Amino acid sequence: MEQMSSMDVDRVMGEGGASYFDGDTHVLKIRVYYEDTDAGGVVYYANYLKFAERARSALLRMGGWENGRLVRGEYPGQDAGVAFVMRRFAVDYLKSAVLDDVLDVRTRVIAVGGASLDMAQTFRRGNDILVEAVARLGCVSAMTQRPARIPNALRTDLTKLLVKG
Amino acid sequence: MEQMSSMDVDRVMGEGGASYFDGDTHVLKIRVYYEDTDAGGVVYYANYLKFAERARSALLRMGGWENGRLVRGEYPGQDAGVAFVMRRFAVDYLKSAVLDDVLDVRTRVIAVGGASLDMAQTFRRGNDILVEAVARLGCVSAMTQRPARIPNALRTDLTKLLVKG
Amino acid sequence: MEQMSSMDVDRVMGEGGASYFDGDTHVLKIRVYYEDTDAGGVVYYANYLKFAERARSALLRMGGWENGRLVRGEYPGQDAGVAFVMRRFAVDYLKSAVLDDVLDVRTRVIAVGGASLDMAQTFRRGNDILVEAVARLGCVSAMTQRPARIPNALRTDLTKLLVKG
Amino acid sequence: MEQMSSMDVDRVMGEGGASYFDGDTHVLKIRVYYEDTDAGGVVYYANYLKFAERARSALLRMGGWENGRLVRGEYPGQDAGVAFVMRRFAVDYLKSAVLDDVLDVRTRVIAVGGASLDMAQTFRRGNDILVEAVARLGCVSAMTQRPARIPNALRTDLTKLLVKG
Repeated sequence: MEQMSSMDVDRVMGEGGASYFDGDTHVLKIRVYYEDTDAGGVVYYANYLKFAERARSALLRMGGWENGRLVRGEYPGQDAGVAFVMRRFAVDYLKSAVLDDVLDVRTRVIAVGGASLDMAQTFRRGNDILVEAVARLGCVSAMTQRPARIPNALRTDLTKLLVKG
Repeated sequence: MEQMSSMDVDRVMGEGGASYFDGDTHVLKIRVYYEDTDAGGVVYYANYLKFAERARSALLRMGGWENGRLVRGEYPGQDAGVAFVMRRFAVDYLKSAVLDDVLDVRTRVIAVGGASLDMAQTFRRGNDILVEAVARLGCVSAMTQRPARIPNALRTDLTKLLVKG
Repeated sequence: MEQMSSMDVDRVMGEGGASYFDGDTHVLKIRVYYEDTDAGGVVYYANYLKFAERARSALLRMGGWENGRLVRGEYPGQDAGVAFVMRRFAVDYLKSAVLDDVLDVRTRVIAVGGASLDMAQTFRRGNDILVEAVARLGCVSAMTQRPARIPNALRTDLTKLLVKG
Repeated sequence: MEQMSSMDVDRVMGEGGASYFDGDTHVLKIRVYYEDTDAGGVVYYANYLKFAERARSALLRMGGWENGRLVRGEYPGQDAGVAFVMRRFAVDYLKSAVLDDVLDVRTRVIAVGGASLDMAQTFRRGNDILVEAVARLGCVSAMTQRPARIPNALRTDLTKLLVKG
């Protein structure tokens, strides 16, 4: 999983969207558009969950894993399709983001089980922490929706990202 | 397809959502929530398409037709699942809706073809017309996504709703 | 705050949206549309937060309180506009909702502070509990976004709804 | 307004989001996430309007113009805040986009009036045209919502982008 200097990011990303690793932490830069805001003038509280899902998908993608391909069972060693579903999401809203902001969604893998995956996600604007969240995901069979083991190669990749301590 | 007096609607519907026919025109009452608005203080322009789809689904449901059951091919006479997909949508934004408004989405069937369906939709707040739209939908096979005939019984129902003139 | 028999609800509500109290618990019926679902075939996890906000707004509205009017400071006794903002939301996803479902969002007031409000929300399909959530809201000045006391008359109303035990 | 080679885009943009000009045409690369899809397995029809708005905002931003700053009237020569509001949007849906796709939203300025702005937008996956749209925007006073002249320097920038012929 490659790394990108923040200079590269700034040069290319007029619009947010850059995806890279800062050590063990995945970073996705997201631009705030009108669609994300509400009449209170700030980002609507549910939309951070959209940002969070983009970031988790981007983290997987940097390791070569795409949700759609996992669901279709296309990866070597997959005998059946699997999907990650949200089991529990807890989110603290500390400060508000507004139109035109660029947010850094920082995602860390904090636990990898046989069929579960925990991630911690923080949303920053510069050095300001706006929102903090913890996600517990379950891996399920794409056919039956019953719990299913995370494919071995994927679990290996995720385990490498486990934050130490 | 039953009709409901506007008095009934007002008595029960604290929150919008009432679905009824006013002659040939289907009416869905929709409450505007924070999720629908943007930082400009008004309903975000894409969200009228969500309201429009709710209204079209509600019109079908009043005739006993549900999207999910059509897709699964569950109705008598269905040999295969079908879905309606949007082909063309043209929308004029005349005035803005704001938080807490109740909108009447008024939907009329204006053309029924073998595999196509045209509807005109207006969004009103009281007697004020805020938004006008025309939708052209296509009926497709749920399996192949290729054009498919609208099931006969459904086409008969839709044809009854065709506005005269 | 008036109550409505479930028979009334069923008669009128083709499309979900009915808002009523079942004892101390507010109920909002919500229909699941295409907009609420994702390619996994179920309701997208962030969209339960939209449903939750609709339900909290509907609960307030049944007591005569509208978000927009609170923000503009229009109620007797309001010397300044206030808004409720989300501080913390924790949500457990137990089962999935799908297209065409009607969900009951059941909301209870569990704590009322000077400038804070805690609510417990469950999402049911029939007797099946699909999702459970706890929301901690803060009351803030609409001008400064700083914590502000909940207007007295509103706090009195909310306190009446506090579940016993 | 700078240009970026497609090689640069591919190298940096794991997640879509790159914004650049290809001659007179602005390009915004957008990744399709779960939030964008529906139970039909494709991008929900209203969400192309979100993508379209991101692209129009990105085009303006590359010229140094941000919606929020325009609204607050912060640019030299602005005597009052202005905003662009949608007047008419017409969209043809030709093919479907699915989860994990990267779309190119290509935006061209096709007319610049005193208080109006027309843009043509196409959504491509590779060389495949999926969706085509035409947007007519109005410039309004941020205070009164009445039509207002596009600030001179902005109109000059937009006119430079007018496609020839």
